[in-house]
Amino acid sequence: MGATRQLAEFVASTTFGQLPPEVVHESKRCILDHLGVALGASQHQAVQILIQSAEEMGGHPQATILGSTIRTSVLQAAMINGTMSHVLDFDDSHSDIVIHPTGPVAAAALPLAEWKHRSGKELLASHALGAEVELRISAAVYPIHYDTGWHITATAGTFGAAVAAGWLLRLDADRLSWALGLAGTQASGLREMFGTMAKPFHVGKAAQAGLLSALLAEKGFTASQEVLEAKRGFCSVLAGQYDLSRAIDGLGTRYLLLRNGFKPYACGVVNHPTIDGVRRLRQRHGLRAEEVVEIESHVHPLVPELTGKRQPRTGLEGKFSTYFAAAIALIEGNARQSQFTDEKVNRPDVVALMDRVRLVVDRSLHENQAVVTIRTADGRELVERVEAATGSGANPMSDEELADKFMDLATGALPRDRAERLAELVWRMDELEDMSALVSLARIDG
Amino acid sequence: MGATRQLAEFVASTTFGQLPPEVVHESKRCILDHLGVALGASQHQAVQILIQSAEEMGGHPQATILGSTIRTSVLQAAMINGTMSHVLDFDDSHSDIVIHPTGPVAAAALPLAEWKHRSGKELLASHALGAEVELRISAAVYPIHYDTGWHITATAGTFGAAVAAGWLLRLDADRLSWALGLAGTQASGLREMFGTMAKPFHVGKAAQAGLLSALLAEKGFTASQEVLEAKRGFCSVLAGQYDLSRAIDGLGTRYLLLRNGFKPYACGVVNHPTIDGVRRLRQRHGLRAEEVVEIESHVHPLVPELTGKRQPRTGLEGKFSTYFAAAIALIEGNARQSQFTDEKVNRPDVVALMDRVRLVVDRSLHENQAVVTIRTADGRELVERVEAATGSGANPMSDEELADKFMDLATGALPRDRAERLAELVWRMDELEDMSALVSLARIDG
Repeated sequence: MGATRQLAEFVASTTFGQLPPEVVHESKRCILDHLGVALGASQHQAVQILIQSAEEMGGHPQATILGSTIRTSVLQAAMINGTMSHVLDFDDSHSDIVIHPTGPVAAAALPLAEWKHRSGKELLASHALGAEVELRISAAVYPIHYDTGWHITATAGTFGAAVAAGWLLRLDADRLSWALGLAGTQASGLREMFGTMAKPFHVGKAAQAGLLSALLAEKGFTASQEVLEAKRGFCSVLAGQYDLSRAIDGLGTRYLLLRNGFKPYACGVVNHPTIDGVRRLRQRHGLRAEEVVEIESHVHPLVPELTGKRQPRTGLEGKFSTYFAAAIALIEGNARQSQFTDEKVNRPDVVALMDRVRLVVDRSLHENQAVVTIRTADGRELVERVEAATGSGANPMSDEELADKFMDLATGALPRDRAERLAELVWRMDELEDMSALVSLARIDG
Repeated sequence: MGATRQLAEFVASTTFGQLPPEVVHESKRCILDHLGVALGASQHQAVQILIQSAEEMGGHPQATILGSTIRTSVLQAAMINGTMSHVLDFDDSHSDIVIHPTGPVAAAALPLAEWKHRSGKELLASHALGAEVELRISAAVYPIHYDTGWHITATAGTFGAAVAAGWLLRLDADRLSWALGLAGTQASGLREMFGTMAKPFHVGKAAQAGLLSALLAEKGFTASQEVLEAKRGFCSVLAGQYDLSRAIDGLGTRYLLLRNGFKPYACGVVNHPTIDGVRRLRQRHGLRAEEVVEIESHVHPLVPELTGKRQPRTGLEGKFSTYFAAAIALIEGNARQSQFTDEKVNRPDVVALMDRVRLVVDRSLHENQAVVTIRTADGRELVERVEAATGSGANPMSDEELADKFMDLATGALPRDRAERLAELVWRMDELEDMSALVSLARIDG
């Protein structure tokens, strides 16, 4: 039996009850984070253009555009919500593959679950299985597929979206094989687009194409049922070299989703160890900016290279400045989306503290590590060594930290009580009979 | 200036009046043939599934689904009409590249022209320019891109659709560059899907993705403006080796579209020389089936390999039987879509004549050639040597033959007088102020 068929059989035969509890819990964390990063980007220009275009096309009000007053067709909602979830580059990231697994999967599954009134358990299973197949196909073609220039979050994400939607539509293995075929033949997304609106758009397109694949397969639309292993199939054409045993081995016993991770801070990961160190010292010693004479961070050589901007002028530039990140982390105790604003980057007290931050390259440190020293006006020298930044494999974000990140992002679009209620429903999603009740909380009353 | 920019500048600066008259005339032929092959497939199951799915999604009635009572959003119409145009595998084919240029381009341009009430001249220019850019990008990556496993009609077609739509939307070179970027990053379609519904679906998706690219670029949605030449751009990632001078040389003076061709018969091209020979002898000698003792065709070795089915049982199988093709061409004088039916393949007089057809392999003949000998009951031996089959580069279909093909296909979906009126409007499209008048003739009154 070929890999495509084995994956299809696995998906068609797996029930919610068969999923390990830790996988189900990880899916909840993924959905919560997905809603947060999407809501946090719901006002972004790229998203607004897509909404305007969708409104121009029209469509039945089947599914919610997150953070808006609008419901539209599931296919349009999938594209817009998927794009939204990747605009901030702040979505979940896998430890072993440069991929953000949840965006395409959740952006296909949530609109479909809303439309078809599926339960919370069903949504969780569809996410867990969609992400698992997506990660396994990624593993089979990684890293050559990514190195060639493919945006793997989008290409493999199309399969993930098709599987999640196909499971929610209760497709049998035959139709799931068609859905995988339709997904593979729509897979696209070039890394050349990084730095433009087209990058997050890839994720939206992956969600939409995967969802469409499942909807068409349900109606008997045919495709090759050997898209992964065929001579002119996905792996051969988009990678050349691949190992499909990585897609198959341990199916149903080992879950790659359990190696997923989340970003705690709304900026490049190389900033994160420094931010961690500053936050810990601030908390431990109750530090205020006025008493800090110097923040010195010993860092990996990539840090000044990637995030060495000395005088950022905008919130976006602030994300590429470890100086700003360290300063704002000391002043506000965090470095979330609501810290990276034009106003904060230019505020006199922040600028003054930024001038007192110093980076020292230390080649003995990993990207994941930093040694932060804060010197105070009264002569103290406080040192914190960060061995593994928060959100990295060795130091995953706790549920509380994830909830905190979600609140910071979601309250940019929703009233606080509504965001709290939404998070609460995500944590007890397995009790929900109808996902549309949850999703409607992510809509704004029009 | 890079190739992407040069193509964008060329498109943005070219007016209808600057196009050579023979190019404009070729575009008319392409549009007529496109409408015919689409209408002829409008009842196909793949098309019906897409229509059902589009109806489920909803959308404003902007554009006609060809051969139906329905108008839907331009994006949905583009996908359905594009798929429709490739279902029969009977659409235009280029002489130098294995590509069907018109499907994706026309399926994007016609719905948009209908929606925006563009003129016939504008439609013609958008087709000519869209097809030209599509063919030039194809030429730059051919044949390695196709050999790798990409369905070039779909991948390059996405660019063609974006250009046609972008020209109709009057995008400047800057926005056209974004549209090309968005098109290239959505390009997909694996040859592994050949033989399934996913194959024509590729063409619909290309039309839709290209149209979406132009609609988004118009609104300021950004993408890389160097999608063709960039290190991780389309040519590098989807071909590896390429020559962009082929995309650029002679832009505006030499038109690759003029090397386009059309298929006269609704079956594999290797059948065509035999059908030509039979038709000529039939016409010259007024032959009837009863008086024919034997039809002997000397053919290229590929003929029995590809179309050697001795006893076809269905109309579709008849397309893979030179025996049936020769017999029906003698009895009915043609081998169009209306000849390849289950009924005709099984009719006793047809079956009886099929048994009297003989194929003889002759390695001295080109695929394009055949020598047909018909022996009659009264002892005549009539011989016809076909040097270049109708529709091949050396023997293009005349306007009259194209119109005849169109009528055969279109009357499967439309009343004869309506089909005639539609063809008449295509031939004088350059006088039309509003393309919606033309397209509405391809709709069925609901």
